[in-house]
Amino acid sequence: MTHEIAVIPGDGIGQEVTPAAVDVLESLEIDFEFTEADAGDAVKEATGEALPQETYDLAASADATLFGAAGETAADVILPLRTAVDSFVNIRPAKAYPGIDAVRPETDLVFLRENTEGVYSGIEDRLTQDVSTLTRVVTESASEDLAEFACDYVSDGDHDGFTIAHKANVMRETDGLFRDTVKSVADEKGVETDEVLMDAFATRVCLDPEQFDVVVCPNLAGDVLSDLAAGLVGGLGLLPSANVGPERGLFEPVHGTAPDIAGEGVANPAATIVSAAMLLEYLGYDEESDRVHEAVEDTLENGPRTPDLGGDASTEDVTDAIIERL
Amino acid sequence: MTHEIAVIPGDGIGQEVTPAAVDVLESLEIDFEFTEADAGDAVKEATGEALPQETYDLAASADATLFGAAGETAADVILPLRTAVDSFVNIRPAKAYPGIDAVRPETDLVFLRENTEGVYSGIEDRLTQDVSTLTRVVTESASEDLAEFACDYVSDGDHDGFTIAHKANVMRETDGLFRDTVKSVADEKGVETDEVLMDAFATRVCLDPEQFDVVVCPNLAGDVLSDLAAGLVGGLGLLPSANVGPERGLFEPVHGTAPDIAGEGVANPAATIVSAAMLLEYLGYDEESDRVHEAVEDTLENGPRTPDLGGDASTEDVTDAIIERL
Ligand SMILES: CC(C)[C@H](C(=O)O)[C@@H](O)C(=O)O
Ligand SMILES: CC(C)[C@H](C(=O)O)[C@@H](O)C(=O)O
Repeated sequence: MTHEIAVIPGDGIGQEVTPAAVDVLESLEIDFEFTEADAGDAVKEATGEALPQETYDLAASADATLFGAAGETAADVILPLRTAVDSFVNIRPAKAYPGIDAVRPETDLVFLRENTEGVYSGIEDRLTQDVSTLTRVVTESASEDLAEFACDYVSDGDHDGFTIAHKANVMRETDGLFRDTVKSVADEKGVETDEVLMDAFATRVCLDPEQFDVVVCPNLAGDVLSDLAAGLVGGLGLLPSANVGPERGLFEPVHGTAPDIAGEGVANPAATIVSAAMLLEYLGYDEESDRVHEAVEDTLENGPRTPDLGGDASTEDVTDAIIERL
Repeated sequence: MTHEIAVIPGDGIGQEVTPAAVDVLESLEIDFEFTEADAGDAVKEATGEALPQETYDLAASADATLFGAAGETAADVILPLRTAVDSFVNIRPAKAYPGIDAVRPETDLVFLRENTEGVYSGIEDRLTQDVSTLTRVVTESASEDLAEFACDYVSDGDHDGFTIAHKANVMRETDGLFRDTVKSVADEKGVETDEVLMDAFATRVCLDPEQFDVVVCPNLAGDVLSDLAAGLVGGLGLLPSANVGPERGLFEPVHGTAPDIAGEGVANPAATIVSAAMLLEYLGYDEESDRVHEAVEDTLENGPRTPDLGGDASTEDVTDAIIERL
């Protein structure tokens, strides 16, 4: 069976790290068919559109999409692409790698972020000169889908349960619905949960990250709290993510376009290659996924390393070293 | 001139640290008249109301209010009290004190948090069984008030300008209005600003807190990001805050009721005493305010210390030591 993979490198170092991840996927004995498409600042400059219709359609029909990064147009690219693949959850692991400088090296968290609604609904109005509004939407159905996914995720993995992070003391109806729905699905399935206010989470995760493991949260809470965790493990540079839908998924590093080093061939491909490992797992290639994870960890620990980690290797050197270790 | 001060100790250690701060204020040669009132879980248990009307009225008419903490009913108490004093900004300093364990000891930030709107508008609906909504409100007028305050704040203090933290790439109309309004007020007044997305702020402040100084943000962003900064400086325990309105203010420690140690007489009064120092400054007693700040810092550094900081002194011992050093 052939798996169709859309490849959208985007801008800046996206153009360097995305091909590196494709090289890794190609080195495995799996029948992939890769199709590349444009998105981001450069294509907007050329055509007026940050996300051309054919790119959207490709992501909406491929089995999985590998995305690099986009610059100024990031929101115009990534938010519609998440819709294109119908992804209801964004999986964001934040783990400190051995040998990498981290504020909190003991951090090892996975965020399961609601990926369709909340303040990302896009419903905004300027009612008067003075007053603007945004309608934040929280549905029982999206909260249920996320909760069911979270229950399977902790049962399949080595996790005791999950923490629900929310702000239901202020957003009583909406985050109340989110919290109650997620908790009741988990209760039915016999999965343990606890809960924490998102502001208290921000304090507590700095003081003692090991008290948390899997964290389930609304869209914006997931955005901010996972970026906070990224800070604790030493930056966005090494973090992968997966936007998962029922039939397809979109896999992307959490980092941006790194304009300061773009074009020099020294971008660290690790986050995109680990995102490709998440793609493999999504398609059912668990064993291959594990091998890629291990090869990346081994390479991060023992080199070669790109300049961001104090080395002088190129993107290609690191990619080759990872492929050799597979 | 007599200053009327409402004193609302609330629940848990609020009952211990609030009288300590009153002792400090009483030791100064200023004509204060203190009136105490109830709020929180205990009064709700007794009367059915977490915030009795007479407490609200007292805060709404006093020159300043000193608040301790409330338990489960915190939101029912503190949100209406912020309205009672008509406070449009919440000032939240987050500074690591010398000699106190901190994840990032170099942290020295002040958050100026919008205090009236955003997702705190309280407008929520359950439209159908499936769909709930919250209307997030951002107004030009509230953004202007905050911006004017922020400009005065940085000009009066030793600050080069301020950073605007927002999420206008997603909340384009509402946070766009916030960002543009704050920036245009600052431009007019010749105050320098830069801006950062709130998720990027969360990463960057962990990696290098010294790149930020004064941070101006919408209500929920201020809530979460200031709690994050609290984590970096070692917890909520030592952090004060001021809810400032045009004619009155409400001053409160950021910590909660600490049920585990409540009633033992060993709660650390520092955060509430520093909140009282912010009250002094608000009323124009800058010199007295400085003296209180210095006495607290001196005591934190040289003791006596309460058990949360590894000492074995009581709340009273620490309060007496601070008063002696005034
Ligand atoms: C670019 C932006 C719209 C996006 C988000 O807010 O989700 C980004 O911050 C992310 O987390 O992937
Ligand atoms: C108790 C709660 C309503 C409050 C808030 O969200 O503002 C608290 O977290 C705070 O920061 O003072």
